[in-house]
Amino acid sequence: MTTDFLVGQIRKKESFLCIGLDTDLDKVPKHLLQEEDPIFAFNKAIIDATHHLCVAYKPNTAFYEAYGIKGWQALEKTINYLNINYPEIFTIADAKRGDIGNTSTRYAKAFFEDLGFDSVTIAPYMGRDSVEPFLAFKDKHTILLALTSNMGAFDFQTKMVDGKELYKQVLEISKTYENSENLMYVVGATKATFLTEIRNIIPDSFLLVPGVGAQGGSLSEVCKYGMSNNVGLLVNSSRGIIYASDKENFAQASAEKAKELQQAMSLELKKR
Amino acid sequence: MTTDFLVGQIRKKESFLCIGLDTDLDKVPKHLLQEEDPIFAFNKAIIDATHHLCVAYKPNTAFYEAYGIKGWQALEKTINYLNINYPEIFTIADAKRGDIGNTSTRYAKAFFEDLGFDSVTIAPYMGRDSVEPFLAFKDKHTILLALTSNMGAFDFQTKMVDGKELYKQVLEISKTYENSENLMYVVGATKATFLTEIRNIIPDSFLLVPGVGAQGGSLSEVCKYGMSNNVGLLVNSSRGIIYASDKENFAQASAEKAKELQQAMSLELKKR
Repeated sequence: MTTDFLVGQIRKKESFLCIGLDTDLDKVPKHLLQEEDPIFAFNKAIIDATHHLCVAYKPNTAFYEAYGIKGWQALEKTINYLNINYPEIFTIADAKRGDIGNTSTRYAKAFFEDLGFDSVTIAPYMGRDSVEPFLAFKDKHTILLALTSNMGAFDFQTKMVDGKELYKQVLEISKTYENSENLMYVVGATKATFLTEIRNIIPDSFLLVPGVGAQGGSLSEVCKYGMSNNVGLLVNSSRGIIYASDKENFAQASAEKAKELQQAMSLELKKR
Repeated sequence: MTTDFLVGQIRKKESFLCIGLDTDLDKVPKHLLQEEDPIFAFNKAIIDATHHLCVAYKPNTAFYEAYGIKGWQALEKTINYLNINYPEIFTIADAKRGDIGNTSTRYAKAFFEDLGFDSVTIAPYMGRDSVEPFLAFKDKHTILLALTSNMGAFDFQTKMVDGKELYKQVLEISKTYENSENLMYVVGATKATFLTEIRNIIPDSFLLVPGVGAQGGSLSEVCKYGMSNNVGLLVNSSRGIIYASDKENFAQASAEKAKELQQAMSLELKKR
């Protein structure tokens, strides 16, 4: 998917919502456990109920790997279902991979070609030759971890490197990578005040922002300081949407939560 | 597996060789492609021919994910085969994972409990709460990327952070993590001169060293500067061993390459 197409979808749906499909069999409604593939049954119901309110879905691969072969089958079924039924949706494999050269190319082929994801999240620690193999794929997007939203982000990401925080070095240096126009970045919303400085370095890149609640407070701040001319934001919510209810009507409850966020986003888009 | 048991195996086999099972169907002998599961058939033959010469096997998960469900089945069969037939072998899932809190716990369960690996490689960028979930597993080992052997290592890992290279900060800070006795570290052998400084920070931890050739030159240097009182080294070779030949006798050819390295290691162990 091209960035232009994604921006068009955001304008059309008045939404830059990404829904995290972190599907956990301990949390899905009990009646689904009788299904042959309860993970896929849950995802399918959530997708059918929410696809018009969001522009992206983001399965975190850990949740699928945790169920072994069955988990991978559920992941394959989910991405196939999205690509066949909702090809306008931007898909993110939240895999946080990172390896060297040809090995990175293998991961890239697995996620971009075999599974058919539009994008994959990547850890920057191993540097240029661990990232460029992903960037080589046309109309595919590499979402680099810059500033994450967990406490451990302060261990290394915010440490000063040559007079600048490490996450800013990641932004600066990655801009010099070949095909860097295919880069997006993970930026934890809990540090929304950092967004101005981030936008000084990467004015136009898309940011994938986790950790924004349905209350709208932090969403306003993220939009105020993080929105670019082409929107440039994908704001993710996982548990707040997909586990809105554990009853029979769980999918409808998810859609209501997604709708709240979509409406807040619609207002933000209209402000600008 | 306990570290003491691993050290005992190294002393007994006079080897600290780890064999990388980076199995690529473009490179395995052509006659294996007729097998129902050529990846597993290749791994099984290599393992049966080399298990007495090494103490560890390290499949890189990218090579398995690249083949989708079939690849994961081959990985499962390989680790099961090792655990049933050669339980004395230390197994490493070279996955370079890293995520937050509960998500990390999912990866840890997948690799340590479901698949039954003894260890997994982890990227440090997300910090403490991305690593500690792995460290919580008793007698399992978390192998943190410190200094990798690729060119991209110079992008961030060797940059100065508070007067010290980032990879040294990773060593220092990770020592303070809970259950840090379960940590090992990836240290690229191409920077063997850095080993003295690394040993000043982590005198006893095991180092997983990639990129040592069969020629013995760099092996001597790695041992001179990197060996600890309890050996503290696992030296990996992948392609140099497993693709020694593409003929019918490929497994025997691999064993010969492994034997060369094992004999060089035996000499190094006797020097000390």
